[in-house]
Amino acid sequence: MEHPLTRRELARLITRIENGERGAQDALNALYPHSGRARIIGVTGAPGSGKSTLVAEMTRVLREQANPPRVAIVAVDPSSPFSGGAILGDRIRMRDLYGDPGVFIRSMASRGALGGIAAATADVVTVLDAGGFEVILIETVGAGQLEVDVARIAQTVIVVEAPGAGDEVQAVKAGILEIADIIVVNKADREGVAQTVSALKMALDIAPAGAGHHGAQADNEPVQSDAYHWQAPILKVSALNREGIPDVLAALQHHAEMLAASGEGERRRRKRVEADIQARLRELLLQHALHALTNSDYQRVLAAADQRTLHPAEAARRLLQSLNL
Amino acid sequence: MEHPLTRRELARLITRIENGERGAQDALNALYPHSGRARIIGVTGAPGSGKSTLVAEMTRVLREQANPPRVAIVAVDPSSPFSGGAILGDRIRMRDLYGDPGVFIRSMASRGALGGIAAATADVVTVLDAGGFEVILIETVGAGQLEVDVARIAQTVIVVEAPGAGDEVQAVKAGILEIADIIVVNKADREGVAQTVSALKMALDIAPAGAGHHGAQADNEPVQSDAYHWQAPILKVSALNREGIPDVLAALQHHAEMLAASGEGERRRRKRVEADIQARLRELLLQHALHALTNSDYQRVLAAADQRTLHPAEAARRLLQSLNL
Repeated sequence: MEHPLTRRELARLITRIENGERGAQDALNALYPHSGRARIIGVTGAPGSGKSTLVAEMTRVLREQANPPRVAIVAVDPSSPFSGGAILGDRIRMRDLYGDPGVFIRSMASRGALGGIAAATADVVTVLDAGGFEVILIETVGAGQLEVDVARIAQTVIVVEAPGAGDEVQAVKAGILEIADIIVVNKADREGVAQTVSALKMALDIAPAGAGHHGAQADNEPVQSDAYHWQAPILKVSALNREGIPDVLAALQHHAEMLAASGEGERRRRKRVEADIQARLRELLLQHALHALTNSDYQRVLAAADQRTLHPAEAARRLLQSLNL
Repeated sequence: MEHPLTRRELARLITRIENGERGAQDALNALYPHSGRARIIGVTGAPGSGKSTLVAEMTRVLREQANPPRVAIVAVDPSSPFSGGAILGDRIRMRDLYGDPGVFIRSMASRGALGGIAAATADVVTVLDAGGFEVILIETVGAGQLEVDVARIAQTVIVVEAPGAGDEVQAVKAGILEIADIIVVNKADREGVAQTVSALKMALDIAPAGAGHHGAQADNEPVQSDAYHWQAPILKVSALNREGIPDVLAALQHHAEMLAASGEGERRRRKRVEADIQARLRELLLQHALHALTNSDYQRVLAAADQRTLHPAEAARRLLQSLNL
């Protein structure tokens, strides 16, 4: 980009975005045209699956390449009331990376901002992308709507699973398998790997075809580009023992090529932008409406719903009507 | 209620709600005034914590009381493409309850409806509430935004944790501890219970005071009623061995009394209704806006954002402006 930001400026801007400061939007507007070049990868999975170690090892291997890419790690940690790396700093594998000037690590707290964390994460990724980081790894802890929203930010989603008791596959239980482009069975040195792999295969087989990356979005567009043929590979990895990482990077490379060749990458990007705009428009419209409604209209409808004479869906419809749009 | 529904009618109406059928809203409007009497309890926690067994055992103990309440169980299972009890039917403890006419069990799939599952669950709870079920247990699998949304439906939230390796507390990792009114350490016959309990205590101690039930919602109202003093108890339970269940029911009773005496129950109900109305209004407004915008306005702004000359937040603002509200 034309006006490179120092690490310190990057960190400050990210904090302003996290805090929802108004001035941050101006900076984002200026940076946005300089973004769009990074390879954005989401890494998700149940707690305890070893996502952090995997992310750290992927970063290490990338940085040991000839002409290494600059790598940013954004960890979205809903458990943490803190941000700025307090949690990640405790992770030994991550700590090894802190001395590397080509690596930027940031943890974002989602506490109290669960509704807006996906938008904030997207903005942070924009800043890092414009800031010249060629690879951005987004690690999310937990499993649920947040992961689906993060999937919309990332170009490729890696779902991490660790062998558990019997055939309990956490990714399946949590419903996040359908957003997986690549599946990593981590801790593959442990017992139960074979069962985990076959449970995952079975789960993939029964998943409706084309549920895919954007399954949660209802619209009339095709779910996937016609030329996009991708079967999520299941890779056995032991991140702690540094085994299997090159396979993950190779799968990422293949997926990037498939995204580009099929037009699916472009389609996903367009969907992502549209979903982002709609989410923000939805919020702007509500704020506008709450401002435009007279307090007595609003309170009357609210009271009726609270006293259960009016269903909330009807209440919303009445409010829409009284706005006279 | 005045027009009691048969189990079959209940099941059919719930299916219509799940499928988003238009006519279902009329039924909901008619039933809504008859709801508002049930005790609604959310049970959440990471996969593998034994939520289903806990829910089944709570139901069994409730049903063995003199003058037993009618109990409905709604399991929200994001992993399942199926609904109508297919998953729950496999759970042995649940199966024991199927013969009891005072128990209604329903699993809801959230697949493909992640955005709307909370609203659908709220509507199903309304139907069961109006249908005369005095206790409604909502079980959610996974951890994330969905659980927070479910917390808004429930009056009391139980977070279930199982002893894990070392001090890894999954509820803490997934950030759902802050919505807990009661914490159950299940599988308390296993090793590592003491560590889990102390990790939970520590996590509760460092949680900012008053983050509480509705922490994710930003507004000017106080987070809690002044008279509401509640410290989430940590209860050791072995649901599989039927140990500790009466303690859970006693804690639920205490919490219900505290909610009533402090006014917190009423405050939460009002917040719940308001959040529900706002969520529906937000969606109605967006649909209205997408309809009102000319296709060329919309596509031009979309293309500019996709080509990164316009940040999505600015794009949304432009669309709002061109609506001339």
